[in-house]
Amino acid sequence: MKFVLAPDSFKESMTAPEAVAAMRRGVLSVFPDADCVAAPMADGGEGTTEALTDALDGVLLSAPVHDALGRSVRARYGYVGSEHLAIIEIAAAAGIDLVAVADRDPKITSSYGVGELIRHALDRGATRFIVGLGGSVTNDGGAGMLEALGARLLDEAGADLPRGGAALARLHRIDLSAVDPRLAGSTFQIASDVTNPLLGAAGASAVFGPQKGADPATVHQLDAALGVYATVIAALTGTDVSAQPGAGAAGGLGAAFLAFFPAELRRGVDVVMDAVHLADRIAGADFVFTGEGSLDAQTLSGKTPLGVAEAAGVHGVPVVAFAGRIGPGAEVLYDHGFAALVPIVPGVADLPSALADGAANLERAVATVCRLLTLS
Amino acid sequence: MKFVLAPDSFKESMTAPEAVAAMRRGVLSVFPDADCVAAPMADGGEGTTEALTDALDGVLLSAPVHDALGRSVRARYGYVGSEHLAIIEIAAAAGIDLVAVADRDPKITSSYGVGELIRHALDRGATRFIVGLGGSVTNDGGAGMLEALGARLLDEAGADLPRGGAALARLHRIDLSAVDPRLAGSTFQIASDVTNPLLGAAGASAVFGPQKGADPATVHQLDAALGVYATVIAALTGTDVSAQPGAGAAGGLGAAFLAFFPAELRRGVDVVMDAVHLADRIAGADFVFTGEGSLDAQTLSGKTPLGVAEAAGVHGVPVVAFAGRIGPGAEVLYDHGFAALVPIVPGVADLPSALADGAANLERAVATVCRLLTLS
Repeated sequence: MKFVLAPDSFKESMTAPEAVAAMRRGVLSVFPDADCVAAPMADGGEGTTEALTDALDGVLLSAPVHDALGRSVRARYGYVGSEHLAIIEIAAAAGIDLVAVADRDPKITSSYGVGELIRHALDRGATRFIVGLGGSVTNDGGAGMLEALGARLLDEAGADLPRGGAALARLHRIDLSAVDPRLAGSTFQIASDVTNPLLGAAGASAVFGPQKGADPATVHQLDAALGVYATVIAALTGTDVSAQPGAGAAGGLGAAFLAFFPAELRRGVDVVMDAVHLADRIAGADFVFTGEGSLDAQTLSGKTPLGVAEAAGVHGVPVVAFAGRIGPGAEVLYDHGFAALVPIVPGVADLPSALADGAANLERAVATVCRLLTLS
Repeated sequence: MKFVLAPDSFKESMTAPEAVAAMRRGVLSVFPDADCVAAPMADGGEGTTEALTDALDGVLLSAPVHDALGRSVRARYGYVGSEHLAIIEIAAAAGIDLVAVADRDPKITSSYGVGELIRHALDRGATRFIVGLGGSVTNDGGAGMLEALGARLLDEAGADLPRGGAALARLHRIDLSAVDPRLAGSTFQIASDVTNPLLGAAGASAVFGPQKGADPATVHQLDAALGVYATVIAALTGTDVSAQPGAGAAGGLGAAFLAFFPAELRRGVDVVMDAVHLADRIAGADFVFTGEGSLDAQTLSGKTPLGVAEAAGVHGVPVVAFAGRIGPGAEVLYDHGFAALVPIVPGVADLPSALADGAANLERAVATVCRLLTLS
């Protein structure tokens, strides 16, 4: 019997590698000779670095960078030497969790540290990048990242702009002459489930600005500044990124990747599945087990289990999804390739104990499913 | 596909017939053509009347009787006309739930109403009785029941004793000459998981007296009174019931049944399984689904799912047990014939909502298991 174990993290309870380990224990308790293929998954959001680095036998490194407010932090990223592959979450440098609520000001927060992180990986030898765009506290269109990689963002008088989204209102020209030349020789897989454009009512400032500290007036100001930025980019590159899907991801970092990097924006789970060659590993398996903290109608919006189910469906391998919570409307997933949705809690429990007992509960639920698979 | 649906009640959430209905919906949602055999179960305790009457297509009747304090109440019992079978829970007349805590006094509480209930069923035509012994508030050795059926309990002066356990200390003679003659022509299956003797440290007064309101001095007084009762019974019948297993059930009602009735005391679930011919119905089935509110190591102490699993094991039919809670040590059940133990809660929930959502949760869990049974 061959099982592919491809869960996402169970948020606040287990990382994806921990979930794989619990699943493996559950399978082996019933099928001691089973072949368990470990494929910890992620969707480009939190946990992607750890899951992918683990799945690809890479190492976790830590780079000295600046956070969104310019303070020194160490940002963790993954590196797989055999593939010259760096695995980065932009939140490690420009993350919202690094900045206290009272200090969040998207007029000045900058993605500069993301550029530093990329440079650190280039120095290490990376030529391939997987970049998860979730969880930023910035709204600068990736301008800071560009600057850290050698670009200059200049005002009409030729002076460098200060960092942050508001200053882009005075952007006149972007000078790429000193950009790190190694970028052109690299490839970037950008993992993002956000398809918002850069500008307008569905744009980065309007949709994501408020949670980063922008009041309505600031949203308006930032949207206008990103409009100037898009105009300058279009003049420089001939490409209008302002309405491209995903350009508005991570405070406009999506736009910078699309305009200036050899980059492809894709659904996070697809990036991760390709990186771990999930489809190849599923071929010939008897069952695929996936899961995450919660499964519900929202799972159809590009979450990991859906991607796994789609990949398994191609090979006709049944997929069982486990979750801490099977939420309202989850039944719709049965129309999308899932064979069964299995909750892991053993009874009435409050959230803290359910989270604390996550691994034991998952192991038990997997064992129970395996027992059922021996019947009929 | 043939499924036997044999759950107990899910206490405070679903009756056994309601649980069967939820299971049936779950099975049919996956296997629309399945043959679902309804076998609502019970263990002789609360819910036995309803489950058995439902399973045997009987009717629920209500008899005017007296409760343990002599107050008028209506006691529900089941009657299956085709089998002349009455299904009685003694708690319907002598139940602890009918008497407020402050009013519980085992010196005076009486099982008189149980005798009235039996007489009502005899009048209806019953010749077979199933009697569940759980939940009594009495400690009178069944003396009240005997009196209601025509026996006279007399003191040395030949006067009738007052009701209640304490008066038995003055018992001199039991006069059976006016006992209802129909009793001798009837059979009584007494469902009881209690194996305590009538007297002593493990006896009715010592073990169950305190929860019926007896302080230590009263326990001593009642145990001595039951000792007199046992001596009189032995003199009359030649049989010493004092140490017989189960004689101490229901405040000594067990002793009265053993001494004076054509009665057999058995594990509750076995009585119920025989009544519904569960073994015959399991033969040829593909799966048996059972369950109750909680499954844990205690389930081995004669609870319904264990009995069902034993019966199914005889026929080699796999048993899946569902529960609101899979408790500590439940894994031991895997050594006793259970194929899988499945919790029904879909996620973190408090007890009131888990109880309220029990039927929906059970239906969903059964459907999930059925989906898993279609795999492999």
